[in-house]
Amino acid sequence: MSKLSVGQASVALASGQITSEKLVSDCLEQIRLRESDVRAWAFIDPELALAQARQRDNEDRRSSLHGIPVGVKDIIDTTDMPTAYGNTRYAGHLPSQEADIVTLLKKVGAVIMGKTVTTEFAYFTPGPTCNPNNLAHTPGGSSSGSAAAVADWHVPFALGTQTAGSMIRPASFNGVVGLKPSFGTLPYKGTHTLAGSLDTLGLFSRTIADQRLLLTALAPHLHIANGPSAPVIAVCRTAYWDQVDAEMQKAFEDHVASLCGQGIKCVEYELSPMFTELADAQRLIMAVEAARALHDEYHEHRDSLGSFTIDLIEEGLGVSPEDEAAARNLAAQCRYRLDSIFASHDLIMTPPALGAAPAGIDRTGDPILNRIWTFLGNPVLTYPVARTASNLPLGIQLIAPFGKDHALIDMADRLNTLATGV
Amino acid sequence: MSKLSVGQASVALASGQITSEKLVSDCLEQIRLRESDVRAWAFIDPELALAQARQRDNEDRRSSLHGIPVGVKDIIDTTDMPTAYGNTRYAGHLPSQEADIVTLLKKVGAVIMGKTVTTEFAYFTPGPTCNPNNLAHTPGGSSSGSAAAVADWHVPFALGTQTAGSMIRPASFNGVVGLKPSFGTLPYKGTHTLAGSLDTLGLFSRTIADQRLLLTALAPHLHIANGPSAPVIAVCRTAYWDQVDAEMQKAFEDHVASLCGQGIKCVEYELSPMFTELADAQRLIMAVEAARALHDEYHEHRDSLGSFTIDLIEEGLGVSPEDEAAARNLAAQCRYRLDSIFASHDLIMTPPALGAAPAGIDRTGDPILNRIWTFLGNPVLTYPVARTASNLPLGIQLIAPFGKDHALIDMADRLNTLATGV
Repeated sequence: MSKLSVGQASVALASGQITSEKLVSDCLEQIRLRESDVRAWAFIDPELALAQARQRDNEDRRSSLHGIPVGVKDIIDTTDMPTAYGNTRYAGHLPSQEADIVTLLKKVGAVIMGKTVTTEFAYFTPGPTCNPNNLAHTPGGSSSGSAAAVADWHVPFALGTQTAGSMIRPASFNGVVGLKPSFGTLPYKGTHTLAGSLDTLGLFSRTIADQRLLLTALAPHLHIANGPSAPVIAVCRTAYWDQVDAEMQKAFEDHVASLCGQGIKCVEYELSPMFTELADAQRLIMAVEAARALHDEYHEHRDSLGSFTIDLIEEGLGVSPEDEAAARNLAAQCRYRLDSIFASHDLIMTPPALGAAPAGIDRTGDPILNRIWTFLGNPVLTYPVARTASNLPLGIQLIAPFGKDHALIDMADRLNTLATGV
Repeated sequence: MSKLSVGQASVALASGQITSEKLVSDCLEQIRLRESDVRAWAFIDPELALAQARQRDNEDRRSSLHGIPVGVKDIIDTTDMPTAYGNTRYAGHLPSQEADIVTLLKKVGAVIMGKTVTTEFAYFTPGPTCNPNNLAHTPGGSSSGSAAAVADWHVPFALGTQTAGSMIRPASFNGVVGLKPSFGTLPYKGTHTLAGSLDTLGLFSRTIADQRLLLTALAPHLHIANGPSAPVIAVCRTAYWDQVDAEMQKAFEDHVASLCGQGIKCVEYELSPMFTELADAQRLIMAVEAARALHDEYHEHRDSLGSFTIDLIEEGLGVSPEDEAAARNLAAQCRYRLDSIFASHDLIMTPPALGAAPAGIDRTGDPILNRIWTFLGNPVLTYPVARTASNLPLGIQLIAPFGKDHALIDMADRLNTLATGV
């Protein structure tokens, strides 16, 4: 029963049809079968997971997530499991304080299955994880292990983080649903800082409906609302359309055509050139803030850093305060501009990545199509829409107004149903 | 005719009733009479101003600001007048490139009258300016000279900047109208960076209607819209109400009562405690970004820095990346919360300062009531509503949704008219 979605597992657990111990045990068996190939986990202790499950089975249900196992990206502090941030120097490191999101997961009764592989400090230097759809391909990053673990039925859901494209890109590469909520929605305290004005906690699952369940349990303060029954979609091919490969282009066009065929209003929308500049501005702010956050690592432990991380820090150190100010300024102007786009459209739709997961696991792919939405702080959701000729997944990227996370999930669920005709 | 408002001067110039040379010359005469007392100017060259005015008189009108003199805060780079940033080391400094806002002012035909006194790098270390309402009192800061010059009829309008409370506080202290537009509205390039995610250019004038004229000429991309004819006001006494002195409390209550008496719906609104924490978060982000922006000044020219500036930089150097991230995160959550306030209210109204301008010119007063609105990026306007027993001005502070700058000006104008019965 490792293939149960969060929603299915929740119903089965609530009705007593299954126990958390059985569910966790089946997931552990799936991991045992697959982990030597996929390598999604930075740390896993089956006994620790089973002990939590048995405890859940012996107590009152705390929420719809009660007894359900979750993968926790190894950038998030845990005190009963090591947290290595994808950096060799932290192998075996045990933080003294637990991240708020882990405390929250425990409070609602989830079972912390283990820690999933992250790239080094959630940037570009990859870990050992392979894409479960084709082991010769990257799972993407930085939330490599979480996306792969959910795709490969190790756990029904997992935590990731996104600073540029660290959730949406791996979700698309692995063929799962990824939600990067509005900036600040899930509590970030105790999760490693890469760039404080960008870092956002998010969620991987295998169904869109699961995201509603997850967000309701983990962000109870959010206003729950549906989207309009016939959302108007701004179809944005973006300034990078020429770099999007043929199969991703086709998947995108087919999905749009399919939605149009179902009566959904899809309006071609060209983003102003400001938004293209904004991708560079995001890169710059990320570098500036990373140079600060990783200051000690760079100055005292540089030998233990991967070259991507060193390059990012050095880029950040070279940025002038004036350029930093101009970049933040541009974001403010784009947020303002975005208001007028959302005045006449309910969603923006773009490709989530330039193509399917690239071959090789030495790089994690390009986040260029995700950067600006992370910078602007808007909620973003991706779900799988097609497969390439060689059977790699391809997703779609949906962006909603800030704070409209529940409406985004609702509209995504409806669009997915319409397009697939399920 | 130095007492003409921007609007009055504009009409008189357009009709040929007066010349720019005459207007500038009268303003210079007022400055000559008053400057030894008020000390609003860091640099002024009467011949340079008059030469610009004569040129304006001999060319076609470029905008409604054509031929009107403006004071430019000495934190803004000019290439034909020195720019000293309120710091001794930069006395006589001539930047090689002009700030975008100065280029823009020239493009629309304004006459750059001179540079107005700023506190050191737009923080707390004061310059020599006195409050024209009572020379023994501070004009506030950091836009000390601009606020004083407008109040004392040296120029009909002036440029300021706000990073915490550097526009709204001095406007209230001097009895003028101050507008801190939505973050990023006026182009910041070429203005000295104190904290890039907070620094905002703004405008002082003597009438609210003038702000409409100024913003139309200087931010032509802004959507021009009126507010609702009967705005609903969220009346926020803030968590600092106990620190607001009796005369400011009375001025605030009287203004609210007067508006209620005119049929305006004023709803008591208590901001969530998140917003109180946000003032500390603003302080922290300001310190972090200032430590970066003033890095070279601190490391290489520390002896030339005032103690307030040194304290700010050292506070910033001591902030952890986690605390920085938490502060930015809190702002995101408050922006989200603000949306729901503005869903049912058109404006937020609070006191602009804890009282009238304090005695002494060694400090510029407390920006505590302005910090969070600068951090959130919303447009803020203050206008004078009363005077203390000792005849010092007291203002009111109005906050509108991000981007609704024109609606804010429109509503402020209407409320002011209603309350004063003019």
